[in-house]
Amino acid sequence: MISQQLKAHFQIKSREQLCNPTTMASNGDTNRDAFRQLVVNTLERRLFYVPSFKIYGGVAGLYDYGPPGCAVKANVLAFWRQHFVLEENMLEVDCPCVTPEIVLKASGHVDKFTDLMVKDEKTGACYRADHLLKDFCKDKLEKDVNMAAEKAAELKHVLAVLDDLSAEELGEKIKEYAIVAPDTKNSLSDPYPFNLMFQTSIGPSGLSPGFMRPETAQGIFVNFKDLYYYNGNKLPFAAAQIGQAFRNEISPRQGLLRVREFTLAEIEHFVDPDDKSHPKFSDVSTLEFLMFPREEQVSGQPAKRTCLGEAVSKGTVNNETLGYFIGRVYLFLTYLGIDRDRLRFRQHLANEMAHYAADCWDAEIECSFGWIECVGIADRSAYDLRAHTDKSGVPLVAHEKFAEPREVEKLVIAPVKKELGLAFKGDQRMVCEALEAMSEKEAMEMKANLESKGEVVFNVCTLAKDVMIKKNMVAISKEIKKEHQRVFTPSVIEPSFGIGRIIYCLYEHSFYTRPSKTGDEQLNVFRFPPLVAPIKCTVFPLVQNQEYEEVAKHIAHSLTAAGISYKIDITGTSIGKRYARTDELGVPFAITVDSTSSVTIRERDSKVQIRVDVQEVASVVKEVTEGQSTWNDMLSKYNAPSVPDDE
Amino acid sequence: MISQQLKAHFQIKSREQLCNPTTMASNGDTNRDAFRQLVVNTLERRLFYVPSFKIYGGVAGLYDYGPPGCAVKANVLAFWRQHFVLEENMLEVDCPCVTPEIVLKASGHVDKFTDLMVKDEKTGACYRADHLLKDFCKDKLEKDVNMAAEKAAELKHVLAVLDDLSAEELGEKIKEYAIVAPDTKNSLSDPYPFNLMFQTSIGPSGLSPGFMRPETAQGIFVNFKDLYYYNGNKLPFAAAQIGQAFRNEISPRQGLLRVREFTLAEIEHFVDPDDKSHPKFSDVSTLEFLMFPREEQVSGQPAKRTCLGEAVSKGTVNNETLGYFIGRVYLFLTYLGIDRDRLRFRQHLANEMAHYAADCWDAEIECSFGWIECVGIADRSAYDLRAHTDKSGVPLVAHEKFAEPREVEKLVIAPVKKELGLAFKGDQRMVCEALEAMSEKEAMEMKANLESKGEVVFNVCTLAKDVMIKKNMVAISKEIKKEHQRVFTPSVIEPSFGIGRIIYCLYEHSFYTRPSKTGDEQLNVFRFPPLVAPIKCTVFPLVQNQEYEEVAKHIAHSLTAAGISYKIDITGTSIGKRYARTDELGVPFAITVDSTSSVTIRERDSKVQIRVDVQEVASVVKEVTEGQSTWNDMLSKYNAPSVPDDE
Repeated sequence: MISQQLKAHFQIKSREQLCNPTTMASNGDTNRDAFRQLVVNTLERRLFYVPSFKIYGGVAGLYDYGPPGCAVKANVLAFWRQHFVLEENMLEVDCPCVTPEIVLKASGHVDKFTDLMVKDEKTGACYRADHLLKDFCKDKLEKDVNMAAEKAAELKHVLAVLDDLSAEELGEKIKEYAIVAPDTKNSLSDPYPFNLMFQTSIGPSGLSPGFMRPETAQGIFVNFKDLYYYNGNKLPFAAAQIGQAFRNEISPRQGLLRVREFTLAEIEHFVDPDDKSHPKFSDVSTLEFLMFPREEQVSGQPAKRTCLGEAVSKGTVNNETLGYFIGRVYLFLTYLGIDRDRLRFRQHLANEMAHYAADCWDAEIECSFGWIECVGIADRSAYDLRAHTDKSGVPLVAHEKFAEPREVEKLVIAPVKKELGLAFKGDQRMVCEALEAMSEKEAMEMKANLESKGEVVFNVCTLAKDVMIKKNMVAISKEIKKEHQRVFTPSVIEPSFGIGRIIYCLYEHSFYTRPSKTGDEQLNVFRFPPLVAPIKCTVFPLVQNQEYEEVAKHIAHSLTAAGISYKIDITGTSIGKRYARTDELGVPFAITVDSTSSVTIRERDSKVQIRVDVQEVASVVKEVTEGQSTWNDMLSKYNAPSVPDDE
Repeated sequence: MISQQLKAHFQIKSREQLCNPTTMASNGDTNRDAFRQLVVNTLERRLFYVPSFKIYGGVAGLYDYGPPGCAVKANVLAFWRQHFVLEENMLEVDCPCVTPEIVLKASGHVDKFTDLMVKDEKTGACYRADHLLKDFCKDKLEKDVNMAAEKAAELKHVLAVLDDLSAEELGEKIKEYAIVAPDTKNSLSDPYPFNLMFQTSIGPSGLSPGFMRPETAQGIFVNFKDLYYYNGNKLPFAAAQIGQAFRNEISPRQGLLRVREFTLAEIEHFVDPDDKSHPKFSDVSTLEFLMFPREEQVSGQPAKRTCLGEAVSKGTVNNETLGYFIGRVYLFLTYLGIDRDRLRFRQHLANEMAHYAADCWDAEIECSFGWIECVGIADRSAYDLRAHTDKSGVPLVAHEKFAEPREVEKLVIAPVKKELGLAFKGDQRMVCEALEAMSEKEAMEMKANLESKGEVVFNVCTLAKDVMIKKNMVAISKEIKKEHQRVFTPSVIEPSFGIGRIIYCLYEHSFYTRPSKTGDEQLNVFRFPPLVAPIKCTVFPLVQNQEYEEVAKHIAHSLTAAGISYKIDITGTSIGKRYARTDELGVPFAITVDSTSSVTIRERDSKVQIRVDVQEVASVVKEVTEGQSTWNDMLSKYNAPSVPDDE
């Protein structure tokens, strides 16, 4: 299934060129596409992932993870739990995907979670309006070599502002450029918003609309009160959730990068808006990596290697907590095997950011599709909790108890109900409420007037008339009051991880090819770290023989007991072919049984082998895969022989 | 939030009675309900789970798992992966929840996955028809003490055959008994089928209906071909999947036991229908546990403690592979902490089982709601793969290559196209096909007739006429052919786990109360094994003091490094209260810092403490929670002091 032509295409290139599409940029998009095709072919052939429901022709934007992909995903999620949830003592929750309309009405998704769509006026086929315009502009710029400079500038401008265009503006451009349906050349409808949520109905009555959640975060927000209580009514704390999310994309493309169902891992870190410092910030402040602040983007400068501590102290990153998570995300991604030179943190431009957000950075990873947003890290201020407070009527707030009561000057308006009752009879309540509702300024004016004139005209808007207030009807004063606590809506800092996107980029960053021993073909390798590798080791009897198979089974048994996943291959295939087969799955270690007392362990990338006692082999593999020792430690411990002949 | 009344109710009972609702059966349903209420109150108050979207009034049948519930679930699933996937080298896959209609049409869900519903004729409120009839009969039997024996027998019969009643029969009974809507007393509609799948639409056109999957199994079946290839085209092998499933229940009740969204863990073990032996069956054949075969149920006998090996050899359990999984499920559930005396394997009655199923057993766990099906273990024969083969046209089959070609007698029908063409012109192809389609019997009759008479009248149904076939137009013979392989549809044995149900039963089986030191209140405890416990240990400085807090933080750090989840509590609350608080979360070990050099570790259920060096404490907790050592090993190693005064 691998195209030999494609492989031949790469044979002249070095490993470094192959695995790094950035260095291929000068060769144009063709090489990127060919590289991607090679990776994707390998992934699909080895069942890392396949289009879902293939025997029925598949469904765009839905993919199955086969055994190795499923194992990689489980490993990434287990590490996410370890690195974030356990390390920070986060409160993990697990909420349903089916969500009633009111929750997503409050969050804004029912009204605003849309993409602009156009329809083929004859067939009814649907397209994303911005995609069509983008494709048109890019295509023109690429192919129309005689284009006037002015026209080229215009198209480039359209590409730059594409995300900001309204439905009307998009429609005008589509008309102006005479863009038609790509499949039929029929004319297109005007753009109109299409809600990206999968809609359904909860219960049998048909009267309770619901949606499949487009993100997991809302499940955390609606539980804020309980979680805050669970945390002993103390801030800051973080809640986390891993789960499926759903977006009914208009026309999914880009494989695993834009899908209709995906796994999100989200953190909502709740913090006092007046104190966004972080006690562990110093753990990450010396990290240096590519950052791409707003100013650099606007002024056309490239992303620069930056010290995180400086970015926070200079105010480039809004606060320490946001900075802390940026640092932790950097560590998470690079531990997984993401290439640090193809990872950058890009700040949202002012027009990209929601009006309520304090600051927002995306962890972007470069792959053959370009720079892809894989993690968003946003300081969303108090927006989400306020939205649900307003809609539900349940106050989602925090309390800060003062160590000692604090004295606060407070306006006190005390209507004298008896006098008001005598004067206004049935209107007494309305007048009373109007007096109490005065602003400080109004009240102090009234106080001054009452003191100087004895009475004052007062408009009661709920009665739609003026009344005369006399000095004996209300007492207005400023008092020093003692307050025992402060009540406020916490800010939320939200790191949100698109697990499928991270995994796809990891596949591209981990892939390389190397020539076979005979040099007549290129072999595929995924250089996953043991943490990520779908299977930690293989067990091969060197030749088919009952004695060796017994040893292999004994080793397999001890690996299971040690909790190490393995694959046993007792086929008579040549050892070189068996190595190649598992290199392509990214298995880091291969145990070859060539005697009954000791065996060899071969490391995938260096192909170097060490010889180890049968009784020790499981614990050696456990140590190097779980990180207690490195492969180099083992090399010095077990006198490494060189790469054997058969590779 | 705990009702003191409820607690008082239990104070006179022993721990054994409390935690075992079976022994309470004699006290009637009231005690069961009270016990359940106490457990559920504790679970909700400590955020094991809460109704979803509570601030908006909640949605029936949807629940959130809060931090401890989420951790318990993650632990159960991790152990499931270890016990099944890793141990058996299963192929784990991960498929989307959104499923196109055609897949669920093939599986039968679109047509048959229904419950019978009745509507309140005035308000439109919906009810499950069988639930209303069941409630009516139970209520009558309980409350109508003067009922005639004949009437009582009739109602009991209705309850017994409830699951087999058709829509018409249910409707007749509802009319006959004059059953009305329970909330309004309005009359009810006739029962009609309501499909339990959540429906949605895939893509923007509205032309591709889809459903949220009602089970995860179909994702495995449609991938059979790829998985078989991945497994080296060898049988048997098992695929597994953990994921969300959705059922739009008409009127969910029974808390976590009947919900609209839940986590399933399913295994599809594919096996040659001619050989269902299992190489590892001997590992489980000596296990003894409660089995409840069809015969015992029908003849009114109770479930009996049975040796699994005997049940298989006697044919009570259909085959070794099915038996192997029953044994593994037993081990799985009891390792988790399910009480072996409240766990039974019940065989489906003939009328419960699908016509295609070879045998089917449910692991049922007894809780306050009665015996609940938590795992289904079915031999579904070739049904599912055949259904998808038929619908998709893609053969989902296995091949058995013979070591040596086998000789098979085969009928050969060879039409002589030239002669047929001359005789029948344009009809030649139809005649040809009709000849080739003859059964062995028809062909051998024709052969005899052609040999004796030279010609024969032959009906070509596709032409709707008779034609005259002559001897020179077709050669019919039986030949000995060599076959190199057998092609067949594998059988599938499917253990399917309702994770939420297992967890709920585990909560009930793990719960008990014990008096506080002063004896004036009952304290709640969950006796989770360390494997399941949401948090493995707590760290408490005995008194608030900076030195102890430093030690506590040091220990916390070493626990994180060891991958052990913990909770640190530096409040000044009394140590007894802090123990009680975490007993209620089922935390098995508490570390109390009462000096800077050594600390105590207290075991939850015995309350016994040992004294351990600060440097050793993390590794001691790791050993006992991960099962390398038992608590008793630690007791003998560290000279245990008695239960301290403060409890």
